[in-house]
Amino acid sequence: MKKITVIGGGTGTYNLLLGLKQYDVSLSAVVTAADSGGSSGRLRDEFGVLPPGDLRRCLVALSENRGDIWRQIFEYRFEGENEKNNMGNLIITALTKITGDFPTAIEAAAELLEVKGQVVPATLDNVHLCAELENHQLVYGETNIDIPKHNPELKIKRVFLEPKAFAYKKAISAIMNSDLVVIGPGDLYTSIIPNLLVEGVVAALKVTEAKVVYVCNVMTKYGETNNFSASDFIKEIQRYSNQAIDHVILNTKRPSEESSQSYGQENSFFVKPDVSGDLKHVTKADLINDSILFRHDSKKLAKIIMEIKI
Amino acid sequence: MKKITVIGGGTGTYNLLLGLKQYDVSLSAVVTAADSGGSSGRLRDEFGVLPPGDLRRCLVALSENRGDIWRQIFEYRFEGENEKNNMGNLIITALTKITGDFPTAIEAAAELLEVKGQVVPATLDNVHLCAELENHQLVYGETNIDIPKHNPELKIKRVFLEPKAFAYKKAISAIMNSDLVVIGPGDLYTSIIPNLLVEGVVAALKVTEAKVVYVCNVMTKYGETNNFSASDFIKEIQRYSNQAIDHVILNTKRPSEESSQSYGQENSFFVKPDVSGDLKHVTKADLINDSILFRHDSKKLAKIIMEIKI
Repeated sequence: MKKITVIGGGTGTYNLLLGLKQYDVSLSAVVTAADSGGSSGRLRDEFGVLPPGDLRRCLVALSENRGDIWRQIFEYRFEGENEKNNMGNLIITALTKITGDFPTAIEAAAELLEVKGQVVPATLDNVHLCAELENHQLVYGETNIDIPKHNPELKIKRVFLEPKAFAYKKAISAIMNSDLVVIGPGDLYTSIIPNLLVEGVVAALKVTEAKVVYVCNVMTKYGETNNFSASDFIKEIQRYSNQAIDHVILNTKRPSEESSQSYGQENSFFVKPDVSGDLKHVTKADLINDSILFRHDSKKLAKIIMEIKI
Repeated sequence: MKKITVIGGGTGTYNLLLGLKQYDVSLSAVVTAADSGGSSGRLRDEFGVLPPGDLRRCLVALSENRGDIWRQIFEYRFEGENEKNNMGNLIITALTKITGDFPTAIEAAAELLEVKGQVVPATLDNVHLCAELENHQLVYGETNIDIPKHNPELKIKRVFLEPKAFAYKKAISAIMNSDLVVIGPGDLYTSIIPNLLVEGVVAALKVTEAKVVYVCNVMTKYGETNNFSASDFIKEIQRYSNQAIDHVILNTKRPSEESSQSYGQENSFFVKPDVSGDLKHVTKADLINDSILFRHDSKKLAKIIMEIKI
């Protein structure tokens, strides 16, 4: 059975896992835990647990719980005045307190959700994501970069973790024991690169015999990747991964006029699939599901990934 | 298989269910949902759901979930500044929103916890418990009676529900289809009698062919049952149940000096097992577990109940 490790966090990874789990593969998801906003951020502040949000979404994506009730509970979000937390995040927080540590809590949650595969945090260290902008301004905290509390016109010069973090051993094992490692899609600086900043992850990517694939985003994100074309995304990923990428997957389909307009209102634009010269392999294809939002179609993307020769 | 329905709420019922579930019996718990304090009360106020606390405790008592992780999650209580809710109550609240109604939520929770038997609310109506004191003062809300926000020296003249509530059909079915109905033990006015106030419950108790047993409390509760002996408890239960009780179980063992002192600090005293004359059957026995608190021993109590001829 093909062993695939996905590296990321956020909607892109959720979507990708939904596609890949349809195949007869052994799946691991290595997920950043540097979230500092929303329900995850509140629980992190109040209970000193690692932020559960990104891991929770991957668990839900890989859940095979037939009755579906656990998936629904894990995704439920209270809308009350005092109670705005996501239920899955609360359960993972409670499990962390009950079992005594975060990875055991994630494993217990995986058991409840009857998860196919495994979801592991990239690091167990309590870290914050920081960005240095082109004007040398420092932005502290993932949420302040993600939902820009800085001038979104300024380029992100670099991101780093504060303090330094070391990789969780199961994240390293997953990368080492895979046939294929898929990085992205997802927010470049706030979902994808944070995984690469964890000490040990890039080393594993360089050493593993797995083919390392990067799935480029299809739209830019204002305040993160303004005006980026595919080659800009690839340049950044290669820089942070120490040139570990073997294969790139690019989308060629352009958004409809309607999609373009709707994204344009958020200063988000189509990522042009200009090819970077240094890569051995590039797959270009129509990867889009444009029925609701212009984004990767989980089936099309999973199919392309499954066709990569290892 | 003997069919037993337990009527109550609170620790007494929890304890009794732990004992009875060791036997090969078909168990139902009919539980009041008039709670207005603590985590249940907050969720009730904020989300308009029925108060889940008493039902949750019965579900946990009847859980046969081997790994025990669900029991632990359902009993977990957050200790944060903003987050003081019980996790089981939150899950039942979320399930109520997801499934659309309270009894379906309780059934879903029962499935998750692998509950032996069933736990049903006495009523699905949104009611509050009220008390009239001997000085005609009205006290509104279960929590204000339970943790007296009134002069605890004043006797409770009567309790009633506001507005009037009708029995949930599954509560009636449980009573009708049982061989044995066990009322109590538990706080007389705040856990036990509220069930009898629901329109239809007393009628069912009068009509059912089940033997109806009352388990008398072993200690009085300050502000509720000051100076009550067993005959006072029985008198009140007979009054609210329209003389439906066939059989009474009384404890004879007195508390140790140490227990007496510790309860005495809370103005709580031993309930003397003086027998009421009108009853056909009274069982008197040592029913106590005095190892931690002076209260019913779940094994001893269950054994006595199982020995009652039906």
